[in-house]
Amino acid sequence: MRQRPPLTPLVGALPSTVPFVGPEAQERDRGRPFRARIGANESSFGPSPRVIARMESVARDQWMYCDPDNYDLKQAAARHLGVGTENVVVGEGIDGLLSLVARMYAAPGDAVVTSLGAYPTFNFHIAGVGGRLVTVPYESDRESLDGLLAAVRKDKAPLVYLSNPDNPMGSWWEANELIRFIEALPETTMLVLDEAYGELGPSALPPIDISRPNVIRMRTFSKAYGLAGIRCGYAVAEAQVIRDFEKIRNHYGVSRMAQIAGVEALADQDYLRSVVARVAAGRRRIAGIAEANGLKPLPSATNFVTIDCGDDGAFALKVLQGLLSRDVFIRKPMVPVLDRCIRVSVGLDHELDIFAEELPGALAAARGN
Amino acid sequence: MRQRPPLTPLVGALPSTVPFVGPEAQERDRGRPFRARIGANESSFGPSPRVIARMESVARDQWMYCDPDNYDLKQAAARHLGVGTENVVVGEGIDGLLSLVARMYAAPGDAVVTSLGAYPTFNFHIAGVGGRLVTVPYESDRESLDGLLAAVRKDKAPLVYLSNPDNPMGSWWEANELIRFIEALPETTMLVLDEAYGELGPSALPPIDISRPNVIRMRTFSKAYGLAGIRCGYAVAEAQVIRDFEKIRNHYGVSRMAQIAGVEALADQDYLRSVVARVAAGRRRIAGIAEANGLKPLPSATNFVTIDCGDDGAFALKVLQGLLSRDVFIRKPMVPVLDRCIRVSVGLDHELDIFAEELPGALAAARGN
Repeated sequence: MRQRPPLTPLVGALPSTVPFVGPEAQERDRGRPFRARIGANESSFGPSPRVIARMESVARDQWMYCDPDNYDLKQAAARHLGVGTENVVVGEGIDGLLSLVARMYAAPGDAVVTSLGAYPTFNFHIAGVGGRLVTVPYESDRESLDGLLAAVRKDKAPLVYLSNPDNPMGSWWEANELIRFIEALPETTMLVLDEAYGELGPSALPPIDISRPNVIRMRTFSKAYGLAGIRCGYAVAEAQVIRDFEKIRNHYGVSRMAQIAGVEALADQDYLRSVVARVAAGRRRIAGIAEANGLKPLPSATNFVTIDCGDDGAFALKVLQGLLSRDVFIRKPMVPVLDRCIRVSVGLDHELDIFAEELPGALAAARGN
Repeated sequence: MRQRPPLTPLVGALPSTVPFVGPEAQERDRGRPFRARIGANESSFGPSPRVIARMESVARDQWMYCDPDNYDLKQAAARHLGVGTENVVVGEGIDGLLSLVARMYAAPGDAVVTSLGAYPTFNFHIAGVGGRLVTVPYESDRESLDGLLAAVRKDKAPLVYLSNPDNPMGSWWEANELIRFIEALPETTMLVLDEAYGELGPSALPPIDISRPNVIRMRTFSKAYGLAGIRCGYAVAEAQVIRDFEKIRNHYGVSRMAQIAGVEALADQDYLRSVVARVAAGRRRIAGIAEANGLKPLPSATNFVTIDCGDDGAFALKVLQGLLSRDVFIRKPMVPVLDRCIRVSVGLDHELDIFAEELPGALAAARGN
């Protein structure tokens, strides 16, 4: 054959990229497993025992299709948040929901605002619809509310992304500041408020106002609920916004197992509280390890601690590489200024032991000692 | 607020639709469960016991993200089909892969060819990218290869869909006829060959030619493998075509559980063979029930039998409704000529007993007796 089916101009212009290289891929390259898996902000504490038992008991039922309406899980999520089921849509993780939001609100060429160094998968999905990313630098390791607002206004952006608490820096805004930001947004700009880490911080999230048609709040089972592998998240918004997801979502995208696990996870809030406490203790432990090594842990409202290595990005990269070579899987921010840091997820005690043991060697190697 | 964020013109023009209403939604409306779930072409025989055991054993591991490369499952699928891993992409069921193919090959306004009455979810995804559907009527209850080819040429379609074996009619084409069709396609037209039922028919599928850049073969774990609930399928194609999926796919879309279950399912081909035999027996049983009631079962290469009720669509709809009201969940084709039929999935013996018991009453009611 001489010719081949052409991609659409939009897709044809895109690079073939992977937003994140998984730890499994690194393990395959290295030829050996990590001893501490504390890089992907997973919950090493796992899901609730009730959730595990439920998943085990329904494994044999997976011959049945999932409920395309996600009815039970929508009910449970709505009840959990005190909203109506008409205010909830379930998707294949926040990633899957971000892909839909990109298609819904960003036409080719539209400006879409986010922070420089924020969640790369959002950027990937915006590129996928031909949107034009406008990035705003972090200020003092926080996403800049004023900066985002100014960019939205200047570029007349139909869509803006904000994560609170933030990844990769672990920082956050208080509810009253977020409310001010939301109220200042143009009515025609949709805010995606990514609250993946929302259960884990010291501060209350802003109340949910489902009468407001320009905010979509996103939640996930991947972090505090310890179910990253099931690929399930949900969005909360005004009813018409939720109905609009029906226009393009993959109705059979969320597995039957995920829907069942999600319902059970929401039902076990005692377990969630215990995880939140363990995460807070883990953050203190990581901070202590950092300080013991002369590094500066940043305050965190998430299940990770971002650590300022006190030098430039090249130095922090060496620290990262030193830890990886010592079988400690972590990640780091890659955008200048933020890139002076490494990012360490709360893990089990024995994993943080390994981190504590290996950090001095990694630092010494990075310093060329 | 006076205004709201506008949807993109493309998405804004779409209806809020659900390609399929699930049996769970019908059960909620009815207020009682079905006694026989033989309408969604699921495998009532379930997944392999080995798969069930594996899923149970890894439930507690679902705190870890899925491997975004789907490495193990791609390896297993590639080995199973005798192709390279570079020829396989894994997705959230064939539905998820169809959504990507629509975005990759159909720009707004492009003609996309399918059969009138074929898989509605493909049509849903084409509408989602602003494609212009061109439909070709079935001929003698089969998708018309000559008709599809003529439509592709006339409309210079970049994309054409064909399912073999076919849903909802259960019909199929022999490999040599399909090869002729593929070779006659314009080089610039991508063929999506949906082989969801490919393991279940009496005839061999055409050999896979991964040197050909205009054919994507799609397989699923939802049918013969009995894993509809896990949402996992894969596509096989020339390497560059597979690489192009990386441009837009949701890399974390397929759950960790699904990837593990898929590997185990492919490893248990003995179980698959036993299911194929049970499905064939079930088809014969359904055909016998149809004939005993004076109806005409159509030949089937799938896990369902489409039954010609011998009258028009209104009559067959009454038969369907009569069965639903008798707690038997089935479906039916909805497009004229095909709509004279009902569609009955192979179920467990006791489910087919219930179908056999209830069909006479449903027919009598439909005839107004």
